[in-house]
Amino acid sequence: MRALAFDGARAALVDRPEPALGPDAARVRVALAGVCRTDLELCRGYMGFRGVLGHEFVGRVVEGPAEWRGERVVGEINLACGRCPTCGAGLGRHCPERTVLGIAGADGAFAESVSIPVVNLHRVPDGVPDERAVFTEPLAAAFEVLEQVDVAPGTRCLVLGDGKLGLLVAQVLAAAGAEVTALGRHPAKLAILERRGIATALADRFRGAAAPLVVEATGSPAGFRRAVELTAPRGTLVLKSTHAASEPVDLAPLVIHEIHVVGSRCGPFPPALRALERGEVEVDSLVSERAPLTRAAEALARAAAPGVLKVLIDCS
Amino acid sequence: MRALAFDGARAALVDRPEPALGPDAARVRVALAGVCRTDLELCRGYMGFRGVLGHEFVGRVVEGPAEWRGERVVGEINLACGRCPTCGAGLGRHCPERTVLGIAGADGAFAESVSIPVVNLHRVPDGVPDERAVFTEPLAAAFEVLEQVDVAPGTRCLVLGDGKLGLLVAQVLAAAGAEVTALGRHPAKLAILERRGIATALADRFRGAAAPLVVEATGSPAGFRRAVELTAPRGTLVLKSTHAASEPVDLAPLVIHEIHVVGSRCGPFPPALRALERGEVEVDSLVSERAPLTRAAEALARAAAPGVLKVLIDCS
Repeated sequence: MRALAFDGARAALVDRPEPALGPDAARVRVALAGVCRTDLELCRGYMGFRGVLGHEFVGRVVEGPAEWRGERVVGEINLACGRCPTCGAGLGRHCPERTVLGIAGADGAFAESVSIPVVNLHRVPDGVPDERAVFTEPLAAAFEVLEQVDVAPGTRCLVLGDGKLGLLVAQVLAAAGAEVTALGRHPAKLAILERRGIATALADRFRGAAAPLVVEATGSPAGFRRAVELTAPRGTLVLKSTHAASEPVDLAPLVIHEIHVVGSRCGPFPPALRALERGEVEVDSLVSERAPLTRAAEALARAAAPGVLKVLIDCS
Repeated sequence: MRALAFDGARAALVDRPEPALGPDAARVRVALAGVCRTDLELCRGYMGFRGVLGHEFVGRVVEGPAEWRGERVVGEINLACGRCPTCGAGLGRHCPERTVLGIAGADGAFAESVSIPVVNLHRVPDGVPDERAVFTEPLAAAFEVLEQVDVAPGTRCLVLGDGKLGLLVAQVLAAAGAEVTALGRHPAKLAILERRGIATALADRFRGAAAPLVVEATGSPAGFRRAVELTAPRGTLVLKSTHAASEPVDLAPLVIHEIHVVGSRCGPFPPALRALERGEVEVDSLVSERAPLTRAAEALARAAAPGVLKVLIDCS
């Protein structure tokens, strides 16, 4: 099969055997896959990954347990061991033995087929087309904020960053009843939220008050400093950005203002699928480009350009 | 009266008028005051403070409302405006208009007398001698951890730092039923905890597992990195250290392991006074030296020496 693999130097289309299947795994024929900023970071050396890239996908099960065959599915990306104390505590997403689809130790979904344990699969409701279902994984990461933080209706909330994740987080928080203002640097991206009735502002012109809930999704180290400034005393600052860089950070304001910082990564798929089914979150406007798998390498390069949002890879 | 004041260059004994009294304030004749690491930081320029140092004290009310006159008291250090929305929300310790006794905009307690709003005062139970009552303020800061974090009995907990605050936090957590291991660099300081039945280890030799609750009280920027490493996925890291330095910090592990970082500063006085009355926390061993107010400047200098714990200033 064809797949986009990273060999430590570059990402290129390769031809390799169909993935082998374990006993409780399924082979999924990938329909669509989405490019995430993490894919770009992996191509810069993050996590030292080698293999087939891609962890956001929707497809159909073509091989595996009978009850899954033929199902249209999306898949959770953390492949837990299922046996360690962390897994026993229900924290499989933090299993120390885990591999991560297309990110750490497991081939991903920029390919004609991907192999994945069935325990990671979720059926896609009929009303959710592939073009939306492919957003389940990043949307689940946005829903993780609601798992971690109690967001009472009317909570004033600032979302920093108008990239893909910031746009999803802002919509999820607004749908949960929070009074959201999204801060970004790109009027065209912020306009997507304004059309949904969500307040926005250009980050460098924002002079509003600090808020009890701030989500940092800028993907930039400087975003953390700004986020700390914008978090009210005893407020909560949710960190969604990962980046390789270590920046000088003054931690004293966290202590003085008794701020809670909540690291936030992958999230639950069921609420994300429900939100897509009910149209509570708009993802269509987030698609910048759709490219065939044969042109995935070039599409990946374009995904890094300023202003580009989601790039979809058509693997069918 | 005599007082130890910092003029921006040095801390020196000065002679100045007794403090003026507002309508709802008391004048307290200071018996004993304690030197905190923050006092040393203030003398290095932290907060740009000018005035009488000292924020840990016990004394007797000599002037003020009748119901307070003659009472032996300790005092909370955040002097809130009482009128702003933050104060209205019961967060006077975070009032943006506040001054802070001996730290920001208000003269402190290394003096024969200190003026303080009566709303900040707490009566000292008869069974608590001055030598212990003077620990109420730092012990309250240790109790703040229990206000912020649910500590179930048996929770495995690492306390980093064997300075004064670390020794108090370790005792408070152990008294709350946590399974505490205190990590430090000074066997003599750790021995204080061992005599109380609390497990300890030299920080650079500790090879134990990451814990669900970690308290960072090292007072050093490098302590944060170590504390992050020692916090289990989804665990809580309580930050007690403030320091002027900004250190390069890699925030990605907070996101990947979904760690909660909880900034923690001043705490509630009533549980601290109760713990002192019941002998649940041992403070006597924490006193390294007791000096008269006339020798306070030298005592302050000695308080900065390695191995020294609490230095008390006798102001009577």
